[in-house]
Amino acid sequence: MSNYLSRLLDDAVNELTRLPGIGRRTALRLALHLLRQDELQSEALGNAIINLRKGVKYCSRCNNISDDELCGICSDHRRDVSLVCVVEDIRDVMAIENTGQYRGLYHVLGGVISPMDGIGPADLNITSLERRIETEGISELIMALPATTEGDTTNFYLFKRFQEKVATFSAIARGVAIGDELEFADEITLGKSILNRVPYHKSF
Amino acid sequence: MSNYLSRLLDDAVNELTRLPGIGRRTALRLALHLLRQDELQSEALGNAIINLRKGVKYCSRCNNISDDELCGICSDHRRDVSLVCVVEDIRDVMAIENTGQYRGLYHVLGGVISPMDGIGPADLNITSLERRIETEGISELIMALPATTEGDTTNFYLFKRFQEKVATFSAIARGVAIGDELEFADEITLGKSILNRVPYHKSF
Repeated sequence: MSNYLSRLLDDAVNELTRLPGIGRRTALRLALHLLRQDELQSEALGNAIINLRKGVKYCSRCNNISDDELCGICSDHRRDVSLVCVVEDIRDVMAIENTGQYRGLYHVLGGVISPMDGIGPADLNITSLERRIETEGISELIMALPATTEGDTTNFYLFKRFQEKVATFSAIARGVAIGDELEFADEITLGKSILNRVPYHKSF
Repeated sequence: MSNYLSRLLDDAVNELTRLPGIGRRTALRLALHLLRQDELQSEALGNAIINLRKGVKYCSRCNNISDDELCGICSDHRRDVSLVCVVEDIRDVMAIENTGQYRGLYHVLGGVISPMDGIGPADLNITSLERRIETEGISELIMALPATTEGDTTNFYLFKRFQEKVATFSAIARGVAIGDELEFADEITLGKSILNRVPYHKSF
């Protein structure tokens, strides 16, 4: 006899447990919840999960997630094609899009250089970035990679490789978050925010 | 353009968000995780969810979850058919089975009487319990319902209705949990555990 008295329940619990952050107890709670709901809900959830992985495409230009050949951002003619923001993954695209402050395009690297994890430049979408730099007339490359050793390594690698080909290289500002007290900011962030202080005429 | 740049991702996030305890941020994290895994994993998860709700059966005797007409407990001939433990739902069956201390059968009510939620005796699996009491030679009915007003109401209702038909009516012991300090036990539990104290010859 199975743990959960039903092979179907066992299967569902086992598969749910493979998701990150979901233990057996939570998986069981989710499965029992689905059993109490209409059959249509389980079907919609199951099919959405299957279709996501099966049907998803990646933008041929920027590697962002997309339902078509080009993503919604790359195919939006109102965006400024001379600006390209380099990010680690599509979550970063979403985060920047949610600010509503950026009107350029993106390039999703799909990771950062990490010798510890065996990830080198060849494992990232850098060749396609080079092709874009050579053909799309990009004037500024904005680095929005994580502020980690790996992120810094990747920044440096891209700078060395493309500095001659792009007029402006920049990185998003790091500093004390808006609303945060100075005394609670870590020293590195606070130090950066003093070094990179902004003259009044720039920000107003 | 959708929030998440892809209708497929949107659909998956929306469906995952309908699960209890899963917000949009977690749903997105789960969906992006699935995108990084092999397609087979999404298919296994999706199919397990669909098949669970579609294929699940309930035991015709005790209403426990089952893959067959009779559940694994009811069809196990080594179990003591004269003992029936009445529980609210199948999670309680699992919890008691996990103790390894009970060798009788169960009866899953599917809820408790709750006038506030509009749940009366007719909404619970009580008619099937009555039929079992009349035909199966049950000698003891063990109430293992929650220690709430609704649980107590249901206990009382079942006692009034079946007291003449069953030799012994009992309820699981409530008291200070093993390992708990007396000073931290709530007064009602501690009071119960004094009232229902167990003479040495019973427990040893």
